[in-house]
Amino acid sequence: MALNQETRDKLRQVSTATLATALYKRGFRTQFIQDVTPLRPLAESMVGEAFTLRYMPAREDLNRLEVFRDRAHPQRKAVEECPPGAVMVMDSRKDPRAASAGSILVTRLQVRGVAGVVTDGGFRDALEIGGLNIPAFHSRPSAPTNLTLHQAIDINVPIGCGDAPVFPGDVIVGDNDGVIVIPAHLADEIAEEATEMTAYEDFVTERVQGGQSILGLYPMTDESNQPLFKEWRAKKRR
Amino acid sequence: MALNQETRDKLRQVSTATLATALYKRGFRTQFIQDVTPLRPLAESMVGEAFTLRYMPAREDLNRLEVFRDRAHPQRKAVEECPPGAVMVMDSRKDPRAASAGSILVTRLQVRGVAGVVTDGGFRDALEIGGLNIPAFHSRPSAPTNLTLHQAIDINVPIGCGDAPVFPGDVIVGDNDGVIVIPAHLADEIAEEATEMTAYEDFVTERVQGGQSILGLYPMTDESNQPLFKEWRAKKRR
Amino acid sequence: MALNQETRDKLRQVSTATLATALYKRGFRTQFIQDVTPLRPLAESMVGEAFTLRYMPAREDLNRLEVFRDRAHPQRKAVEECPPGAVMVMDSRKDPRAASAGSILVTRLQVRGVAGVVTDGGFRDALEIGGLNIPAFHSRPSAPTNLTLHQAIDINVPIGCGDAPVFPGDVIVGDNDGVIVIPAHLADEIAEEATEMTAYEDFVTERVQGGQSILGLYPMTDESNQPLFKEWRAKKRR
Amino acid sequence: MALNQETRDKLRQVSTATLATALYKRGFRTQFIQDVTPLRPLAESMVGEAFTLRYMPAREDLNRLEVFRDRAHPQRKAVEECPPGAVMVMDSRKDPRAASAGSILVTRLQVRGVAGVVTDGGFRDALEIGGLNIPAFHSRPSAPTNLTLHQAIDINVPIGCGDAPVFPGDVIVGDNDGVIVIPAHLADEIAEEATEMTAYEDFVTERVQGGQSILGLYPMTDESNQPLFKEWRAKKRR
Amino acid sequence: MALNQETRDKLRQVSTATLATALYKRGFRTQFIQDVTPLRPLAESMVGEAFTLRYMPAREDLNRLEVFRDRAHPQRKAVEECPPGAVMVMDSRKDPRAASAGSILVTRLQVRGVAGVVTDGGFRDALEIGGLNIPAFHSRPSAPTNLTLHQAIDINVPIGCGDAPVFPGDVIVGDNDGVIVIPAHLADEIAEEATEMTAYEDFVTERVQGGQSILGLYPMTDESNQPLFKEWRAKKRR
Amino acid sequence: MALNQETRDKLRQVSTATLATALYKRGFRTQFIQDVTPLRPLAESMVGEAFTLRYMPAREDLNRLEVFRDRAHPQRKAVEECPPGAVMVMDSRKDPRAASAGSILVTRLQVRGVAGVVTDGGFRDALEIGGLNIPAFHSRPSAPTNLTLHQAIDINVPIGCGDAPVFPGDVIVGDNDGVIVIPAHLADEIAEEATEMTAYEDFVTERVQGGQSILGLYPMTDESNQPLFKEWRAKKRR
Repeated sequence: MALNQETRDKLRQVSTATLATALYKRGFRTQFIQDVTPLRPLAESMVGEAFTLRYMPAREDLNRLEVFRDRAHPQRKAVEECPPGAVMVMDSRKDPRAASAGSILVTRLQVRGVAGVVTDGGFRDALEIGGLNIPAFHSRPSAPTNLTLHQAIDINVPIGCGDAPVFPGDVIVGDNDGVIVIPAHLADEIAEEATEMTAYEDFVTERVQGGQSILGLYPMTDESNQPLFKEWRAKKRR
Repeated sequence: MALNQETRDKLRQVSTATLATALYKRGFRTQFIQDVTPLRPLAESMVGEAFTLRYMPAREDLNRLEVFRDRAHPQRKAVEECPPGAVMVMDSRKDPRAASAGSILVTRLQVRGVAGVVTDGGFRDALEIGGLNIPAFHSRPSAPTNLTLHQAIDINVPIGCGDAPVFPGDVIVGDNDGVIVIPAHLADEIAEEATEMTAYEDFVTERVQGGQSILGLYPMTDESNQPLFKEWRAKKRR
Repeated sequence: MALNQETRDKLRQVSTATLATALYKRGFRTQFIQDVTPLRPLAESMVGEAFTLRYMPAREDLNRLEVFRDRAHPQRKAVEECPPGAVMVMDSRKDPRAASAGSILVTRLQVRGVAGVVTDGGFRDALEIGGLNIPAFHSRPSAPTNLTLHQAIDINVPIGCGDAPVFPGDVIVGDNDGVIVIPAHLADEIAEEATEMTAYEDFVTERVQGGQSILGLYPMTDESNQPLFKEWRAKKRR
Repeated sequence: MALNQETRDKLRQVSTATLATALYKRGFRTQFIQDVTPLRPLAESMVGEAFTLRYMPAREDLNRLEVFRDRAHPQRKAVEECPPGAVMVMDSRKDPRAASAGSILVTRLQVRGVAGVVTDGGFRDALEIGGLNIPAFHSRPSAPTNLTLHQAIDINVPIGCGDAPVFPGDVIVGDNDGVIVIPAHLADEIAEEATEMTAYEDFVTERVQGGQSILGLYPMTDESNQPLFKEWRAKKRR
Repeated sequence: MALNQETRDKLRQVSTATLATALYKRGFRTQFIQDVTPLRPLAESMVGEAFTLRYMPAREDLNRLEVFRDRAHPQRKAVEECPPGAVMVMDSRKDPRAASAGSILVTRLQVRGVAGVVTDGGFRDALEIGGLNIPAFHSRPSAPTNLTLHQAIDINVPIGCGDAPVFPGDVIVGDNDGVIVIPAHLADEIAEEATEMTAYEDFVTERVQGGQSILGLYPMTDESNQPLFKEWRAKKRR
Repeated sequence: MALNQETRDKLRQVSTATLATALYKRGFRTQFIQDVTPLRPLAESMVGEAFTLRYMPAREDLNRLEVFRDRAHPQRKAVEECPPGAVMVMDSRKDPRAASAGSILVTRLQVRGVAGVVTDGGFRDALEIGGLNIPAFHSRPSAPTNLTLHQAIDINVPIGCGDAPVFPGDVIVGDNDGVIVIPAHLADEIAEEATEMTAYEDFVTERVQGGQSILGLYPMTDESNQPLFKEWRAKKRR
């Protein structure tokens, strides 16, 4: 169930807050990845299908620096295999005491056309990564090499990230509030609904800025707002 | 015991650090709201009387999206009733896993002339809120709707916020270090004392920048600093 | 074992991430000070020998405001005695609920030529400190006076800071990822090795930006990269 | 909607685990009070309607020892007013650093016929309380007087306890796993359903002890278990 | 590399403390599963090869009660497939807010001859499990069904448990201090060395009980203790 | 200011709860060592003067097993030098992930007549230590050798333990609620006052068990209780 371009385009224009509400309506309460933040403010939302990397706690004898000489090392392999347009999501067990990755790997992801990268741990070279043209989300900067605490063990399996469930192929959306996970089979309908919701929220924001009370307006329980909204949509062509 | 304009004006010009010390002298150790930060840097301190909102953990059957259709819902009611010039302080039980509020409600607060808003949880639409002309403080951004974890239950009762006690009418001051709670009956004298302390601290800062040691100066145990300070005040008209 | 100027200069040009890896090679896994962040982004790395201050929990009767009238109070004494070029490192027991220091003391450190200041607690007047010409690292801003929770008790003894061991004279390096502690006897060799590593990493970054895969390049297992790197170094004079 | 005796009797014979599952079926996920434990092992479940006490953070000037001389102090008042057969549930903001109550108050509750007492903080005199004939649940022992950190502020309002929502009149059940909150309007049907579930679980336990696989049995997807269960119930008169 | 009977027998007689030291000598620092405790005191150590179960965060639509009707559900499948003599180790992401399993499943494990069960979350029916004839370790009791927060996703893959790395086939040893993970290839030599260490520690304990100083004795730097130890071993036939 | 025998005897008969209140009256709020528990229930309170050991984070190259061959190693030295009748208090930085000590060292302390041992980390061989005739308090059992995370660095300096300030010579009292620190200069008066308070509390407990309300009795605001108490004391010879 590939992410189609129309849905991708819609999701770029909606917020994780709006998506969270759309998911909440359907009974989803834990799809927001807790406690991650973008390395620099984003102008539009990051969107892509999840490609996952699972870390487990590092055992000392299996995590000497030499392991990276192995081209099949899962961390390096994942960086080369993550599809363009996908978002790499790392399960670092919410432990930012060692890095999940650094600027060279994230640069490689950017060059390969990957849509973004998320860890519930931390990145090293955080300032450099913030300067790259690829959205990146983490918990806090962390200089120690991942080998110190994290062993990459599985590529593209279901994982947890920031207490959210992430299945490969789920649609990941990130903005300045953080990152949310849309179950793959709901991406199209959620994108559509969130687009509609966003239109109404933008209308509401304008009305509130103009002095209108939220009562009756947000949510719309006073039907007299309906023609005003209709007119606004017509004017805004939304 | 309303906050008078003179005290409000003084408090805008002093820091939470200075206020914390003035409170400490009187035996208050827990008036600083722990672990909240402004959504954008502030040029002058936020000041206002506390108007509180208490959240309790959300029970699923009582927190469907439809609840907001009720105009008496405490969260929405609080937003419409918080007095201009007051600071809305939310007890979110230090849990930022779901939002305490979002940009539409905070916009409404701004339009209504509310002086600021504080939660020990998180706001959604944090970037947008940071762009509004109202100081806002939280723990971290959080996209999920408050219904996910928080049920608004009481308006303007005594609460805890970031481990600080907050009584309705207490005077709330916030700056780039965070937010502090001044017991209502002490606001005038604390404002006066902090203003005096700030004058001396500014004098000290200039002296230290000029190369003077802190010994004897901060605090002033060497009385030879007294005439210098007096002269400085005269020159600065403070 | 004083920090020589050549080593100091080298360390200014390398990242804590690279240093962490060089230390990891030698079996050091806990030298990174966890969960501290600079008060403003740094253009080059902070470098200096550790001069330490140990705080213990404050007992109320020993921490009235009057204690600062004593010129021998360890916090004030430390500020006046920390050598120029050193980095003051404070063991605040990872507790940012009260300040480790404020802008006046840090200004004094700056004027005295101290190279930087680090606490695993928090600073008050954080915005002002961020504006000073001295790197400062903490966990989060904190307005309450240190007396509220912290009693300065020892100067220049071995301490823990952010779970890292710090001995007086260890070489402290800080950048935008955080702060790392180099055991004094290893400073020269680590600085040299990190300089070499940085040259290679910069070469790799350029190659990756140009489209080369990390496989065989990072680390260099494909020897065909060797002459390219040699040529790059010659061109860059590194 | 008073708790009737039949429901009370049924609930004494079922576990919080079984109740949690019955609630889960109806969409309740957060009714278990997290991280509280009985002060001594219980032979049968504690059952009673919730009577609540809300603590807020203590402000020093309002919490001198003398406050207990006031007969209207909410903590003391609550102890005298909690109805026989009810369970007193205290919102201590999950903070066991100071006591929620001690053995004298809990003795008074026992003598008054109160069915149990729960705090998400800690009790002082924990060994003595464990020896009383009233079930008590807390997070960990805590010697400091509640005044140190907790100010009793409200009696019988909706509260949070261990991240669970508790409304006055909800039915509280506690056993060796901890404490669960049954919404008042569901108590009868949950008690009935849990009694049925317990019968089946006891049957399953016997079968598993006798060597039967859980597959097909737990849950019963192999209908051949139905007559065996029927026979077992007849024999056990359940 | 199966666990042979001789090694199993040796490991039953040594403590996790002694094993931790033997592993520390070989550079292993993170093999102790943090923050788990046996549900009742053990008379001899639990020993077995690791058979693992990985949980991820539960997504609501995939974790309705009906999922257990599927005989291939990984949790139920794991319980039926865990080999006799093995220890089932569950990665519950250190989250005890919902159960990892309950007494029926653990009874089934006992009947099937499984050597023990460990989770870094919590068990429901903890008192009942403590009464079974199978060692069980967890963080704290937890009544909610695992479906509330945990979805069983993988059987017998490498996992983390309490921050320790666990590979299928590693040798798991548990006693009253907790649980430790011996890398499979080291089990025989560690068992042998720990047996020798235990003999010396028991000798030391006797000597210390008799009044001897630990200096020179523990560790043995005073060679005059050698013949005493030799004699003791002869007498004790160890 | 040595602890005299009379004070020691009194303190053995009072609870940490009562002592906490006596200290609270004098403005002390942080003398209770947070989150430590005795390894087995105590029949009478542990009492002794504090003899401290400070741990810092372990640096790998300084903490090989061989370090214990040095008779001057601070941990071993402290065990041999702690005076009989004193309580050894260890600052383990609230980190129980590695042991603060094990059964051999604690046995040595017992044999040497030390009055007790406290760590805000964990002990290994916890069951064995619980069986010794010396009170021991910790956070939780921990098998890994202290070298894994803790380096003993200072003997008998002021420390923090469980967030409480501990000065050498302070009087340490422990019971089943935990451990409290009495500033040395207050030990006699606190012991005397707590003894009086205990008499009244025991009287109150009897009265409450007999059915009297706490109002007017606890605290005594109804003077009619005075003669009853006087009579009770006479009868009990207290």
